[in-house]
Amino acid sequence: MNKQKLLINGKKLKNTLEEFANFGRTKNNGVTRLSLSEEDRLVRDYFCSCCKELGMSFKIDDMGNIYATLEGIESKPPIVLGSHMDTVKKGGRFDGILGVAAGIEVVRTLVENNIKPRIPVMVVNFTNEEGARFEPSMMASGVLSGKFEKSIMLKKTDTDGITFEEALNTIGYAGDIENRLKEATAFLELHIEQGPILERESLTIGVVECILGMVCYDIEITGESDHAGTTPMDMRKDALFEANNVITKLREKLSNLDKELVYTMGRMNVSPNIHTVIPNKVIFSVEARHKNPEVIKQVEEIIQAVQSAPLEGCEITTTKLWGRDTVWFDEEVIDLLEQSTKLLRYPYKRMVSGAGHDAQFIASYIPSAMIFIPSINGKSHSEDELTTWEDCENGVNVLLETVLAIQFKKN
Amino acid sequence: MNKQKLLINGKKLKNTLEEFANFGRTKNNGVTRLSLSEEDRLVRDYFCSCCKELGMSFKIDDMGNIYATLEGIESKPPIVLGSHMDTVKKGGRFDGILGVAAGIEVVRTLVENNIKPRIPVMVVNFTNEEGARFEPSMMASGVLSGKFEKSIMLKKTDTDGITFEEALNTIGYAGDIENRLKEATAFLELHIEQGPILERESLTIGVVECILGMVCYDIEITGESDHAGTTPMDMRKDALFEANNVITKLREKLSNLDKELVYTMGRMNVSPNIHTVIPNKVIFSVEARHKNPEVIKQVEEIIQAVQSAPLEGCEITTTKLWGRDTVWFDEEVIDLLEQSTKLLRYPYKRMVSGAGHDAQFIASYIPSAMIFIPSINGKSHSEDELTTWEDCENGVNVLLETVLAIQFKKN
Repeated sequence: MNKQKLLINGKKLKNTLEEFANFGRTKNNGVTRLSLSEEDRLVRDYFCSCCKELGMSFKIDDMGNIYATLEGIESKPPIVLGSHMDTVKKGGRFDGILGVAAGIEVVRTLVENNIKPRIPVMVVNFTNEEGARFEPSMMASGVLSGKFEKSIMLKKTDTDGITFEEALNTIGYAGDIENRLKEATAFLELHIEQGPILERESLTIGVVECILGMVCYDIEITGESDHAGTTPMDMRKDALFEANNVITKLREKLSNLDKELVYTMGRMNVSPNIHTVIPNKVIFSVEARHKNPEVIKQVEEIIQAVQSAPLEGCEITTTKLWGRDTVWFDEEVIDLLEQSTKLLRYPYKRMVSGAGHDAQFIASYIPSAMIFIPSINGKSHSEDELTTWEDCENGVNVLLETVLAIQFKKN
Repeated sequence: MNKQKLLINGKKLKNTLEEFANFGRTKNNGVTRLSLSEEDRLVRDYFCSCCKELGMSFKIDDMGNIYATLEGIESKPPIVLGSHMDTVKKGGRFDGILGVAAGIEVVRTLVENNIKPRIPVMVVNFTNEEGARFEPSMMASGVLSGKFEKSIMLKKTDTDGITFEEALNTIGYAGDIENRLKEATAFLELHIEQGPILERESLTIGVVECILGMVCYDIEITGESDHAGTTPMDMRKDALFEANNVITKLREKLSNLDKELVYTMGRMNVSPNIHTVIPNKVIFSVEARHKNPEVIKQVEEIIQAVQSAPLEGCEITTTKLWGRDTVWFDEEVIDLLEQSTKLLRYPYKRMVSGAGHDAQFIASYIPSAMIFIPSINGKSHSEDELTTWEDCENGVNVLLETVLAIQFKKN
């Protein structure tokens, strides 16, 4: 470990992030840059021009992922930095784009300091991480890692009926399957936390150990839809009352399971949803996330058990919509990120990610890990999304330090 | 009381009801006959032809209400029988039309038995009781009684943007304001119960004393919409969890108030209603009905009190959407209906109506009361709506007996 303490240029990072935010900036200083939209085309062009200026070569693969490479002295598999440039509708200026801008600034720092890397450094933009225009989210990294079938993904349509394939061709970013990311020394993704923990604990850096496993169920309650004025209380089968009982029971049991468990009933639809009619149907979602598969298993048992104990004469059925296992990042990469953070003396903690990221798919074939920086008030997917420029700078410095560490590591 | 025990012809009643059901009959043997639709025009034509056959004259007023009169020996204000012929979408074969068909069969029985009444007998069809095409419900009886402003009602539109006035002119049933029902000896409305009480208690007849007073509130809960995966449970302001607490509290308090109270949370909307996002807004309706205004007052106090006790950090506001006082029917008319029922030896009870009916408006200026007959399984506003032919016949016999009683009463 015989190197200078090299730091990135915070002003240039800020400038890069502000330039990127001009592509789709909303009047409330958020960003709307849906995947494969005209704004996405323009930001991609700008990204490529930035990389070109830095002397990087780039390639585009068949899913529209862009890979810009700063050649190394040795022809080893690259160290890959990056994230995504698409946003949700009325999203923020940091989610995704930060990880891409970070890659550019790391490379800029190397180039401006005349450091020719031993191992190539690649900056990647993954197509359609958000899934806001074309479901599912993390589409392109999912195809790269074999989680999703390309032919099915190409046929996914937006609300106007335009397919992913058409949109990709329209913006001119359909490349060659041969260019796909196949192997790498490491993948490092810097991202905003999208939660309130780092801010609450006055920490600068989160070294992410895993993406939480989760399950999502629908609970469907069927009662009888009678007249609200003419049906005595003791002759009702009120699906909303039954739902109320079920939610109370679920909250009681889930809250006693493990303090790190998060669970949400985010979606609920009531039928016929008329104030004068007793509801005959309520369907609501329950999703829960935890790193330990044993806890998730207990969650599933609790959810399934509600079927057998209706209190209002309704029928209760539970349907598992999906589940995913916890994705643990590479211990060696996590350690490198942690060491860099310590070296830079940033207050930090190891933590989990409750949200999904491209890194969770890439981790299946490339040693990967993530760095989080604080989200003010935990906000994201919103024009209120905010992270301080200082935290952005610190996060990119951790990446730079880690890239240098890997460069100088014997292997 | 010097009269024969005259009964109606059950087969003819059944035939009349079946003929009426042909106008808008659905494939599941329900009826869709929205107010002022082509089906409504055809059923009105049929109603008029039936009345004409029985030697009745008829008039139409400016709201499209039809009044068919069998002249009396004396020119006294008529005894009025009737209800409405419109239905909800996929409604039943009895709601409303039964009260109109009953009037026809009472007159038919008088005519076929060569009984010339002393007091005229009028059969009325009130326009747009259901409010299913043009809100509000009980529109025309509301205008007659001064509850609704005619000029506003004429401008009400259906989902195609057609106004009530246009639709009324289209079917050719716009008449003269001079023809409105102004005074009457009594108004008697036979209707299906639309609830399960008579069936549960094995009764044939319900003598209706009042239409329940009610209140309707919206409860709006505002929390914060954060990421379901990244926000620890103790840092959430979950509007759905708060709504769950409020509903539990309301149910507990309202259920202890009075056993005759009925209350319903029929409508609930959750925002943003996405399974991965903590709800930031839940709005739900609470409506409650009871005959005693003191109980309704207590209900309002209970509802308003939830504002001050959020448990999840959300804001809770309650808004009164509307309320109506209990409408008590005329004691003398109620007594006459009860005496007729006793004379015919039908098992009966005095009861309340939880649903609204034209009679509640007409009662404001004409001595009125209602008769209920059983709804099988309490169903109405549904193709499953069902009442036995025998119960229909019995209900009409109570009307006939009461009409005769009023005819022979000294006044």
